[in-house]
Amino acid sequence: MALPNHQVFLGIEGKSQKILEENCIEKSFKKNSIIYLQEEEQDAVYIIKTGWVKIFRQTLDGEEAITDILNDGKFFGEAAVLENSQHSESAEAIEDTALYQIKLSSFKKVLSDDRLFGLNILRYIARKQASKTLEVEHLTIQNASQRIGCFLMKLCKPENKLNTVLNLPYDKSLIASRLGMKPETFSRALNTLRVATKIEISGSRVTIPEINDIISYTCSACSETYPCKDL
Amino acid sequence: MALPNHQVFLGIEGKSQKILEENCIEKSFKKNSIIYLQEEEQDAVYIIKTGWVKIFRQTLDGEEAITDILNDGKFFGEAAVLENSQHSESAEAIEDTALYQIKLSSFKKVLSDDRLFGLNILRYIARKQASKTLEVEHLTIQNASQRIGCFLMKLCKPENKLNTVLNLPYDKSLIASRLGMKPETFSRALNTLRVATKIEISGSRVTIPEINDIISYTCSACSETYPCKDL
Repeated sequence: MALPNHQVFLGIEGKSQKILEENCIEKSFKKNSIIYLQEEEQDAVYIIKTGWVKIFRQTLDGEEAITDILNDGKFFGEAAVLENSQHSESAEAIEDTALYQIKLSSFKKVLSDDRLFGLNILRYIARKQASKTLEVEHLTIQNASQRIGCFLMKLCKPENKLNTVLNLPYDKSLIASRLGMKPETFSRALNTLRVATKIEISGSRVTIPEINDIISYTCSACSETYPCKDL
Repeated sequence: MALPNHQVFLGIEGKSQKILEENCIEKSFKKNSIIYLQEEEQDAVYIIKTGWVKIFRQTLDGEEAITDILNDGKFFGEAAVLENSQHSESAEAIEDTALYQIKLSSFKKVLSDDRLFGLNILRYIARKQASKTLEVEHLTIQNASQRIGCFLMKLCKPENKLNTVLNLPYDKSLIASRLGMKPETFSRALNTLRVATKIEISGSRVTIPEINDIISYTCSACSETYPCKDL
């Protein structure tokens, strides 16, 4: 089938495109179903067509560490470019989700044959690494309310400055885990943010009267300026 | 000059090696001197010969976020593979340091001409991304004492199980910042770790009677098992 529209495929050779297309299928996952588990043998890489996917790992104590929550157009499972062919994490659909699944062997073949594809993947992973580095920075510098503010801004369109209405894309408890907070910390921090920036919260609906209030509250504790590359 | 011994140069073409060698020089930096600053134009990538280098960024509020502290054999400044040629971070020698400095233009030329070099760099950056993801996991799951335990274990040799003596490689205040803690949190957490694992601390000297005590205290709150890939 036709390859999804993604920056890593831009300008690759016709031969490469053909190999990937022949090894690309679409797959659907119901909400709360597992896509793959940590330590399973990896045989594919994935791009999200629609939906939300949680990437997580389990500690020896059995606690779940959510390291990413991804939506449309995002790539995952690309750790396969390393020698190790076992999944280093688990992936679960947290809403009904449709994925493009590309066979790992074909992906690796094109990676080693097509110079431009290799450079595209390199740029993509370097960008992802930069984004993880920014996340480490946020976890060490920002307070809990600022981290929630940053999360909300990523859901906003930079061109809409006034009276933005958002729907939280998934459960508050998942947002809390993704941001490295206990649910009770999340509730308190959300309240602090609400008072500081005059946002209104009703269920999963958030109204932001003036986005600049969140920017000045949140982005002062970050090395990037809004709208940042990470959005 | 001869290229440093680093996995990214393994098996590259003779022509590539020659270009890189012609554009590689050695440079020394005294303790506390700046190697480059965030937003400066980038013209080189670096590999540490000896010493310690702090990678950091400044928030708008002027706070310093330390995102990495690196030693011998470590690569940095490789964000240059992205389109942007400005440094996205600052680098400072925190001890007397000798660096291999490779001109960015030659590095980029070999990257686009030598397929194997491209794959080596890709693997290296993917591994670094995995290590950042583990750091995000630690920051969201481990408590402060466990994070210090993990830091100490990275300084141990896995084959020495009993009566390990370490010297902390740099200031405690820097270790605290690197681990995302205020100095007072660091002191309390270090004390908790000391009581739980019977380590002795005197100045910058740390004695670990039984490394398994730190392993069971720390690694239970992690998805990797000791000795982990990240060491």
